[in-house]
Amino acid sequence: MTQSEALPKVLDRIDRDLDASLERLFAFLRIQSVSTDPAFAPHCRTAAEHVARDLASIGFAADVRPTAGHPVVVAKSANGSGPRALFYGHYDVQPVDPLNLWETSPFEPRIASLPDGRKVIVARGACDDKGQVMTFVEACRAWKAVTGSLPMALTVMIEGEEECGSKNLGPFVQKHAADLKADIALVCDTGMWDPRTPAITTSLRGLVYDEVKIKAADRDLHSGLFGGAAQNPIRVLTKILGAIHDDNNHITIPGFYDGVKELPPDVKKQWQALDFTPQAFLGQVGLGVPAGEKDRSLIEQLSSRPTCDVNGIWGGYSGEGSKTVIPAEASAKISFRLVGGQDPEKIRDAFRAFVRARLPADCKAEFISHAGAPAIALDWGMTQLAAARDALTQEWGRDALLVGSGASIPIVADFRRLLGMDTLLIGFGLDDDRIHSPNEKYDLTSFHKGTRSWARVLAALAA
Amino acid sequence: MTQSEALPKVLDRIDRDLDASLERLFAFLRIQSVSTDPAFAPHCRTAAEHVARDLASIGFAADVRPTAGHPVVVAKSANGSGPRALFYGHYDVQPVDPLNLWETSPFEPRIASLPDGRKVIVARGACDDKGQVMTFVEACRAWKAVTGSLPMALTVMIEGEEECGSKNLGPFVQKHAADLKADIALVCDTGMWDPRTPAITTSLRGLVYDEVKIKAADRDLHSGLFGGAAQNPIRVLTKILGAIHDDNNHITIPGFYDGVKELPPDVKKQWQALDFTPQAFLGQVGLGVPAGEKDRSLIEQLSSRPTCDVNGIWGGYSGEGSKTVIPAEASAKISFRLVGGQDPEKIRDAFRAFVRARLPADCKAEFISHAGAPAIALDWGMTQLAAARDALTQEWGRDALLVGSGASIPIVADFRRLLGMDTLLIGFGLDDDRIHSPNEKYDLTSFHKGTRSWARVLAALAA
Repeated sequence: MTQSEALPKVLDRIDRDLDASLERLFAFLRIQSVSTDPAFAPHCRTAAEHVARDLASIGFAADVRPTAGHPVVVAKSANGSGPRALFYGHYDVQPVDPLNLWETSPFEPRIASLPDGRKVIVARGACDDKGQVMTFVEACRAWKAVTGSLPMALTVMIEGEEECGSKNLGPFVQKHAADLKADIALVCDTGMWDPRTPAITTSLRGLVYDEVKIKAADRDLHSGLFGGAAQNPIRVLTKILGAIHDDNNHITIPGFYDGVKELPPDVKKQWQALDFTPQAFLGQVGLGVPAGEKDRSLIEQLSSRPTCDVNGIWGGYSGEGSKTVIPAEASAKISFRLVGGQDPEKIRDAFRAFVRARLPADCKAEFISHAGAPAIALDWGMTQLAAARDALTQEWGRDALLVGSGASIPIVADFRRLLGMDTLLIGFGLDDDRIHSPNEKYDLTSFHKGTRSWARVLAALAA
Repeated sequence: MTQSEALPKVLDRIDRDLDASLERLFAFLRIQSVSTDPAFAPHCRTAAEHVARDLASIGFAADVRPTAGHPVVVAKSANGSGPRALFYGHYDVQPVDPLNLWETSPFEPRIASLPDGRKVIVARGACDDKGQVMTFVEACRAWKAVTGSLPMALTVMIEGEEECGSKNLGPFVQKHAADLKADIALVCDTGMWDPRTPAITTSLRGLVYDEVKIKAADRDLHSGLFGGAAQNPIRVLTKILGAIHDDNNHITIPGFYDGVKELPPDVKKQWQALDFTPQAFLGQVGLGVPAGEKDRSLIEQLSSRPTCDVNGIWGGYSGEGSKTVIPAEASAKISFRLVGGQDPEKIRDAFRAFVRARLPADCKAEFISHAGAPAIALDWGMTQLAAARDALTQEWGRDALLVGSGASIPIVADFRRLLGMDTLLIGFGLDDDRIHSPNEKYDLTSFHKGTRSWARVLAALAA
């Protein structure tokens, strides 16, 4: 039986096995693997062991490997003659607060119906990332059941610290590089374009996150006695931060756009054809007017253009009533989303130079480096990309879109940097999944057709 | 015995009585009359009763009158044929935190010596305002002891909420207006020019204090998914606040300087002659470069020019590490120090119009009004001012300076507005008194020569 002969049987098996596969997902969802709270550490270990045992049951050599934090599951199939893929996901979930906003207990998964008739799986982690991980595992299980083996050589790595910054994962990948190296990486932690249109995320913005503290006098001052003569660090900070965007919302930091490329004309045309309106995208959060560069479309602002946001600011008095203080210092946290061609460290240096160039004589600036990661962009001519796209298009009956994401997934940069591997980001989440929020859900269709999608993608990549 | 014959005896009596007058001050300082903390309310009442009893002992008809908060002491002497003065002070003190920074217990007053040989009284309230109030009371006591009566008709009002905003005092003055009305008000809550040079404060800046909240999306957003397209209220707030001062540190709010007068040439000349350097004034707090309007001298920036300070700012994430949030809102507290000719409500309106004019379509601004008080400026030709100035000059052997204060004392505006009275602000505090801070002190010389000063000033005003 060739793989193309086997595929219809595998898809049929997935359909018939749906109830059992849901029960397996529910068992995974019941484990309270919240990674940020040390009190839940035993549950994280339980989740890792659960995943390893499940993968072992379908033919993987699986083990639970320690890190400085929660363990990582690594599972490998026997080598075949073809290419090998590394699948990445995470078994940890976000905290459930505020618990009182959940309609039912977050760790008691259930099937519910939305007003528009969609059936959904409701639980913490239903989408992010247990539901998505299980679409891949169930596809493997179906292949194994029908053909007795996996459709291609696979390594699976499921970590437990994605929701708290994956800080031990880079060193882990480096340490186990020989074991993890493959021809391509697969990640199921992204979304579809809409409930009927699949998507592959081919670019991710990078991230530079910096913190600045402006210091003036050596103590807090009374604004009556010193006001008008003493430098006010909040004034200095607002003047600097307020100068980062010009009236057209371009970023004014010298060199910021160095290396940023224009979209290829065909991609621009594909994006222009999308019905992606400010009303639809921004309207969902009570906004309506794109705040990015005025000469760029909304989708460009969100995915192909670099940005700057102040994520936090504080200084002086913020309690009830009034206090006439000139504070000694004021601080802000600032992040930049980067696109291909921008060097994170150059951007960080340029920002700091921008601040220092605007410091009055009496002020000092101190900086703290937080995250820094370059943007990722796949070569649109990649053969695996074309194969995966065809597979998704066949499953969903609509062209799979190639999209850029505004977010950053640092592991994808690590795969490129440490293992020389590109990553296909294929996921089945939807905008209304409420990940990180109460009543997280995953559409039953995402789970079912997501599993079928992976069955097809694996066959396509193996060919 | 005429008053001019009596004065040398009164001054002599003050000198001989110094130890006893210090013991009376210490008894007042031992009362823990912290007004902001409800736990200390009984101590505030004790302080009020202590003051009333003391004033009664030197011939005043004194009582403790209730307010919605801490009571006010009102004491009146019998009418004479001449003018009547209303003396104002406060019996409440600032909290003592951080207690561990006090070298000795804040309510156990003591005499200490500074490295330069000055003897000082150390206690909470030693200067602000118990020590200053007692210079006036002890001067009255000496007059009474030597001549059998007070040198002029006097009303004394000592309140207990100055350190928490005096919010019940305006209504109290209005209610008791007939009782409190006098020819002039005297306040002992300000400072000398330096330890050897007395000063009368003839202008006080006014104050407008406003709070603004900028709101954008209806929830906090993820900066990866929305960054570049969603309006960020911190960006909007910093852009607005950063535009308030231009590169010459002028305030750009339209109409802000309307009505502001230039200094009279003779005052400008007097100020220019003062040895008032940025090194001396700003150097004490670790600064060196005046931050006000570049075309104004430091003393103008501090006392005769209006200012704007951001007293507090907050929004988004301010904890450890990084959070890629675009917050739903950001806030700031902003205050303006006003000079004569500026209308507080017009300034508040102009600020709000300035904010609204810069709001992007997707943002809303909400405001909270805090304090608002106009500036105060005495007529330099006032006869009482000349009389008091001469008296101080005789006591200290140096010309008493007429100075402007950057601070605001709202009761002075109330006296003008409600009782049609001008106020002479005469005080003996020094820049290093650490009022509101641990180890507050009052120079023994300030107390002793301050008492002698009031003895002379009262004689001069009575003449």
